[in-house]
Amino acid sequence: MSQTDSPALRVKAFAFDVFGTVVDWRGSIAREAATLAGRLGIDGNWEKFADTWRAGYRPAMDRVRRRELPWTHIDDLHWMILDHIRGEFGLGSIGDSDLDHLNRAWHRLAPWPDVVQGLTRLKRHYVITTLSNGNFSLLIDLAKHGGLPWDGIISADLFNHYKPDPETYQGTARLLNIAQDELMLVASHPDLRAARGLGTRTAYVKRPLEHGPAAPVPEYTPGEFDLVAEDFIDLARRSS
Amino acid sequence: MSQTDSPALRVKAFAFDVFGTVVDWRGSIAREAATLAGRLGIDGNWEKFADTWRAGYRPAMDRVRRRELPWTHIDDLHWMILDHIRGEFGLGSIGDSDLDHLNRAWHRLAPWPDVVQGLTRLKRHYVITTLSNGNFSLLIDLAKHGGLPWDGIISADLFNHYKPDPETYQGTARLLNIAQDELMLVASHPDLRAARGLGTRTAYVKRPLEHGPAAPVPEYTPGEFDLVAEDFIDLARRSS
Repeated sequence: MSQTDSPALRVKAFAFDVFGTVVDWRGSIAREAATLAGRLGIDGNWEKFADTWRAGYRPAMDRVRRRELPWTHIDDLHWMILDHIRGEFGLGSIGDSDLDHLNRAWHRLAPWPDVVQGLTRLKRHYVITTLSNGNFSLLIDLAKHGGLPWDGIISADLFNHYKPDPETYQGTARLLNIAQDELMLVASHPDLRAARGLGTRTAYVKRPLEHGPAAPVPEYTPGEFDLVAEDFIDLARRSS
Repeated sequence: MSQTDSPALRVKAFAFDVFGTVVDWRGSIAREAATLAGRLGIDGNWEKFADTWRAGYRPAMDRVRRRELPWTHIDDLHWMILDHIRGEFGLGSIGDSDLDHLNRAWHRLAPWPDVVQGLTRLKRHYVITTLSNGNFSLLIDLAKHGGLPWDGIISADLFNHYKPDPETYQGTARLLNIAQDELMLVASHPDLRAARGLGTRTAYVKRPLEHGPAAPVPEYTPGEFDLVAEDFIDLARRSS
């Protein structure tokens, strides 16, 4: 960290939100759905399909967080949501193996183009891990698929708690054996605010295309986060 | 797996014991102790020191496994043992910062010379993780120090159980979202037997120098393990 970023001088590890921050879920899901639909001769708006699938994610996780559902993996939550919305997109009669393949598209999401270079640079000076609501095996698949050089995979299923539950941010610092303010959480979402309230350092990375070119960009207050970066290469530059 | 290794055909992931199997704890600890002692003008047999320190490890873990001690990290167990034995080796009056540096030598252990090449080859076809009684942050430090290309770090502190408790082997398969017999546990120690009893596949890798050139080599029965390998390069060859 440079002198002007003095609050972050103590940082020893960076933990990254993954969906949206590291990988382009919308473009990847839309492409996979379009490919499958094309093979089956089904027309549709697959960007809207991706948005609809993703929109079911937070409410489904919140049911787990309120313990209305027992601990349920993202893979199973994705399946529940897909099963609920597929009729709306003309996918009501496709076979189980095609459905399963489509659900596993969340294991094959493409990283944003700056990610591998930025992570590789950060890894020279810091520990870099995920901190994602994706399950452990999904995150390993994403890393192998995208060549992501993580030092370790940290996932909600290590804690049986989803972000923004405090157990996730505190558990990450505990596993890494560092103080809460030696951990920098990186995300393109405002769930940074929950982490910051616990003393975690926060870096906001802009991903203006996460929800597509027409979607509003998240708003933030200057000074709200320890760092604001244009992308991961910029994040690495501001952290060295 | 080749046809002659048919029981292992289903294997999707390899989980590695670390101390002794991946890294040469004895040579590394002896070298670090000799360097520190040389600086302080202390004579000693530092191979014997390494052996004595390591010999305290299993009894200390077993106290945790019997719940005579609350959950305690390896870092803290190493410290307790070091504090107990240091007088015997003339280290009774060294300062806390030297002691702490020496205790952290367990974070800087060198891999055996075949490890990086073997892991890199296995990683092309399988998920490769640790499954170690070392704590998560120690395993990350070892990986960064030795350039170990793990897909993920799995450690006893994810389960609050030490090997050979079944929770460790079963928890690893659960995190990787695979059946127990799709997991291959790799070790140079007979703790493979506890894993095998649960249905885990087992690979025994010979490390004849783990306890020094004079120590007896562990005995095993032909056919007891799914694979027996000379080193990690041989393991990769037998698994492709």
